[in-house]
Amino acid sequence: MSITVVGSVAFDAVKTPFGERKRMLGGAATYFALAASFFDEVHVVGRVGEDFGAEDMAVVATRGADVSNIERVPGGKTFFWAGEYGWDLNSRETLDTQLNVFQDFQPELSSASRGCDVLFLANIQPELQLSVLEQCGETKFVAMDSMNFWIGSARDALIEVIRRVDCVILNDAELRQLTERPSIVGAARAVIDMGPSSVVAKQGEYGAALITEDQFFALPAFPLETVIDPTGAGDTFAGGFVGYIARQLDSSPAEPTLRQAMAYGTALASYSVEEFGTERVERLTAGEIDARVEDLRRITQFDHVPAPLEAS
Amino acid sequence: MSITVVGSVAFDAVKTPFGERKRMLGGAATYFALAASFFDEVHVVGRVGEDFGAEDMAVVATRGADVSNIERVPGGKTFFWAGEYGWDLNSRETLDTQLNVFQDFQPELSSASRGCDVLFLANIQPELQLSVLEQCGETKFVAMDSMNFWIGSARDALIEVIRRVDCVILNDAELRQLTERPSIVGAARAVIDMGPSSVVAKQGEYGAALITEDQFFALPAFPLETVIDPTGAGDTFAGGFVGYIARQLDSSPAEPTLRQAMAYGTALASYSVEEFGTERVERLTAGEIDARVEDLRRITQFDHVPAPLEAS
Repeated sequence: MSITVVGSVAFDAVKTPFGERKRMLGGAATYFALAASFFDEVHVVGRVGEDFGAEDMAVVATRGADVSNIERVPGGKTFFWAGEYGWDLNSRETLDTQLNVFQDFQPELSSASRGCDVLFLANIQPELQLSVLEQCGETKFVAMDSMNFWIGSARDALIEVIRRVDCVILNDAELRQLTERPSIVGAARAVIDMGPSSVVAKQGEYGAALITEDQFFALPAFPLETVIDPTGAGDTFAGGFVGYIARQLDSSPAEPTLRQAMAYGTALASYSVEEFGTERVERLTAGEIDARVEDLRRITQFDHVPAPLEAS
Repeated sequence: MSITVVGSVAFDAVKTPFGERKRMLGGAATYFALAASFFDEVHVVGRVGEDFGAEDMAVVATRGADVSNIERVPGGKTFFWAGEYGWDLNSRETLDTQLNVFQDFQPELSSASRGCDVLFLANIQPELQLSVLEQCGETKFVAMDSMNFWIGSARDALIEVIRRVDCVILNDAELRQLTERPSIVGAARAVIDMGPSSVVAKQGEYGAALITEDQFFALPAFPLETVIDPTGAGDTFAGGFVGYIARQLDSSPAEPTLRQAMAYGTALASYSVEEFGTERVERLTAGEIDARVEDLRRITQFDHVPAPLEAS
């Protein structure tokens, strides 16, 4: 199956308690592509400036992702984001956002990108997500991300996108904001009522939960003593999750396949945060991914050994 | 095995988005005893006022817990706490705390309480936890709880208690505050370096993690569409966790037993939050507990089905 991702390709400046990078490769589509291209053919749709070098493009294409649908704007500057994380990495402050060439991004998909079987709509303006959906032909699986800003400012368009995808990937706060439901299970069920067949609730250091019409599954994050940089963890998760599904897909993915995909996404995300930006995943190997999926199984399994409870 | 718990027996006033109770039975020792007495003989050590009626005492003793070591102070008033929870139940504000007879609580253990095999030191002043430890004879397993206030104001005594117990049960924020380590794995390892062989990190709606010297285990909370009242969830968890260990204990509990105990604690806590205060657990049955442990297994299991990853 081939996968198309539409989203930001960017430069980030990041400061964490463990160091900083003044300018590193970033963007949702970059993180997604680096992870998903372990599994299948990936086409990246995005827009960068003239400051985006051949060596940056080569990183996005590390595992063979097709970058020919990333438009490079002569004289333009690449989307830039700067942020700083707090002591325990659970809070982050945005210090600067320069949309630059991303401001006028109007995704125009190449024929290879349009012909994908699986589509990931990274966090961009919902109207643009709709335009991508309309350009694509028959797809077998479409997943999407979004953010608090669009939930607040472009709610109707966002709900139209949600209605047309198979899987919504949002964090807990976004799910609550979107549905005005206090519980994650309730919020996810409300999203499923809009059309999707599955919801992934991203929970940061606590991992992620998968909610389908009649099932619930939760997987913790892989426990790390030191997280260096959480930037891109969510999009790396999405790349592993969607990539695994694309690789295993016949028609619509069965719930056990979604669970396995959660484990692959979680494994990839856990490597991503071990170093700054894309540094760790750039040199990651297939063997390392499988080893960590096995570790995830090991840290979540238990036997149900009934205690002889007092009848009461 | 017999279990002794030392801690508060109280009245609470609680307001949540789903309703309120002006005065309901509460206190850490109450919640613990109601859960732990499913598994084994429980002795409750505490102190209440004259306003604590026989019907209140009967609730603590629902499953046969020995309440003869709860001192009733003539003319005294029972510990009272009032709090209100926010919209998503993840934040709570304390509106009133009246220590009353609990102010001068000096636990004096009866011979039955002293003779326990398993001891739970609920969240009280660390000096009192030490006094209880000194009154007890040979124990096989001791677990403890504490809170941010004692970590800040009685750190040395608290660390002395920690040095002498087998298992520390704290929430993530408390573990970070205690050890000044940003990651939960790092914080738990720092606690284990002080003496205990296991640490349980309570994570509220995200469940709990178990850290031992060489293992990690995480279990999500049971997913509920509606949580009515989170009060007492942590102590109910502790009651199920410690109760299961007591029931299965030969010498020191093996790691698989601790995992199974986590599942029982989680199951009991999930029932507790379905209604106000102790209401749900009062009428809970052994069969319901085992059914939920099985549900927890179902929502956490996945197979590792390797995708044919691109060698890279």
